[in-house]
Amino acid sequence: MKVGGRHYRTVWMEGEMVCLIEQNLLPFEFNIFRAMNYRDTCMAISSMIVRGAGAIGAAAGYAMAQAFLQGGHDPDYIENARQHIRSTRPTAQNLFYAVERVYWAGRISTQEAVKEAHNIADEDADACKKIGELGNDLIKPGDTIETHCNAGWLAFVDYGSALSPVYAAHSSGKQVFVYADETRPRGQGARLTAWELKNENVPHAIIADNAGAHLMSQGKVDMMIVGSDRIAANGDVANKIGTLEKAIAAQYYAIPFYVAAPVSSIDFSCSSGMDIPIEQRDMDEVLYQSGPNAEGKIDQVLVSAPGSEAMNPAFDVTPAELVTAIITERGIFKPGELATLV
Amino acid sequence: MKVGGRHYRTVWMEGEMVCLIEQNLLPFEFNIFRAMNYRDTCMAISSMIVRGAGAIGAAAGYAMAQAFLQGGHDPDYIENARQHIRSTRPTAQNLFYAVERVYWAGRISTQEAVKEAHNIADEDADACKKIGELGNDLIKPGDTIETHCNAGWLAFVDYGSALSPVYAAHSSGKQVFVYADETRPRGQGARLTAWELKNENVPHAIIADNAGAHLMSQGKVDMMIVGSDRIAANGDVANKIGTLEKAIAAQYYAIPFYVAAPVSSIDFSCSSGMDIPIEQRDMDEVLYQSGPNAEGKIDQVLVSAPGSEAMNPAFDVTPAELVTAIITERGIFKPGELATLV
Repeated sequence: MKVGGRHYRTVWMEGEMVCLIEQNLLPFEFNIFRAMNYRDTCMAISSMIVRGAGAIGAAAGYAMAQAFLQGGHDPDYIENARQHIRSTRPTAQNLFYAVERVYWAGRISTQEAVKEAHNIADEDADACKKIGELGNDLIKPGDTIETHCNAGWLAFVDYGSALSPVYAAHSSGKQVFVYADETRPRGQGARLTAWELKNENVPHAIIADNAGAHLMSQGKVDMMIVGSDRIAANGDVANKIGTLEKAIAAQYYAIPFYVAAPVSSIDFSCSSGMDIPIEQRDMDEVLYQSGPNAEGKIDQVLVSAPGSEAMNPAFDVTPAELVTAIITERGIFKPGELATLV
Repeated sequence: MKVGGRHYRTVWMEGEMVCLIEQNLLPFEFNIFRAMNYRDTCMAISSMIVRGAGAIGAAAGYAMAQAFLQGGHDPDYIENARQHIRSTRPTAQNLFYAVERVYWAGRISTQEAVKEAHNIADEDADACKKIGELGNDLIKPGDTIETHCNAGWLAFVDYGSALSPVYAAHSSGKQVFVYADETRPRGQGARLTAWELKNENVPHAIIADNAGAHLMSQGKVDMMIVGSDRIAANGDVANKIGTLEKAIAAQYYAIPFYVAAPVSSIDFSCSSGMDIPIEQRDMDEVLYQSGPNAEGKIDQVLVSAPGSEAMNPAFDVTPAELVTAIITERGIFKPGELATLV
């Protein structure tokens, strides 16, 4: 995607350096974070400088490649790196997928590890492009699409998953409108999805997460498309907290609920969503909010009762029965059909 | 309820002055706003210095009494005041209920108007106390209760509606735990409900609105209790945006979904929820957040992509079929049984 006229991927590698669009600073500042070694890249993943299924995967693959480049002679170093990278985020399937692919390639040679990391990034971009083309067929001119969190190009290497069909529809001349769920606590919808949509001139409005069912009840949502951090073999879908609530509401109002994800997000070793670990994050993400104040200075403010605690599960699992179909680069599948993809 | 050892109502009258706990400042500052005339009181209602079904009703009744005290000799002044007060918020039934009661009492004498305004406030407090006693029977020791927005004592003259059974259960020695939905965009759950619960030493945690269905799916919610701004004769319930989504999720997980409200919140002239007007509020409530920063100074920060717009419906309508029962001061009713209360 282009930012200020220049084409960017979300994650890429220059020599031994991993470069990442610094998503914690968006939409208020556009900056490239440079990770000099795998530990820097791990910190970028765990602190959510980079986030989103495919972007985490690509970053993790590059981190594993960095480890081979900088300590490939030492099996302990490599094994430590592999475990360190795997421990940065517990839910995202693409992370484990990428680390293992690069790890096994690196057992052949460091050059193979680097090549494999680049392959993973390229495949992610290609898959997302294809998801856009296939998903576009589901969108009618004039449709209003609700999405949750950010599964746009920032969440992948390029194009995105849930937003890729929207971009394809918009590019092909269809009039579309997007409701971007704010997606508390971290606000990836209000901050990142809205920023992407504005950057691509797609008409949209941010809504509080609470407003989804109300808009559905008024006939104002034609479909939902969301991304996924991990899909179990039975079609259960782990995604950003709140996805489950939207899927239940969509079913209640008979609105199609699509999940868009590359095949690399499917964990065939995971028989159902009950086996997907749910990350619990710091309660301060709920209790505080930050952004630029009237003087343009980033400030953090307390938005809750002083002394009260919060719970902050970062993901939830939407059961397959609530998912209309899963849009992958290899076709559009009913949740129960995923097993045919193994 | 007591704050700092002293008993307070949310709204009261001293001479011609209406006194209101300034809810826009809570939970960071406890201050009493003094409205010198009905216009001040109207501003307090529309700017949400006072908010919540019963508190708006009492304030509106007192505003109408102020109009009689200060301009009772002039029918045009009274009629203007009546329309002005009625126009402050479109959804809350108690507002219209209170204005009309005080208006018709004032046609007898100004003294009757003032007396009627006090009656409305007293009846609200009594009704909420009774709702607590009746609702307490629905709560088992060890129950975890989720609530949305603030339907505590700040939303009424005293006791509250949805929180009144929680307070009664807690006082009677039952162990209870409350999940307080943050309730974006204005955060009444994170700010007001959490502040009340902390003040009353009720164990609780704030959750992002997105986390409700996830906690339900894990068996961590025994029941939901919410308040209401207006209940239609058929049992459809208008309440804070997001209530509908919770009710749908509760039904999906077969969790009882209770609405607690005084009979004064029932609009028997309204045959169904489709006739209840939904207030649209300023998009800046979604786009910005405010609270004290690290220096304790209230700051407002942008939490969304610069230049993106938002939609901000303030209420939604939960259809009667999703409501397990309505807890009123006159008993606990299935939604379809409300007509017997006329």
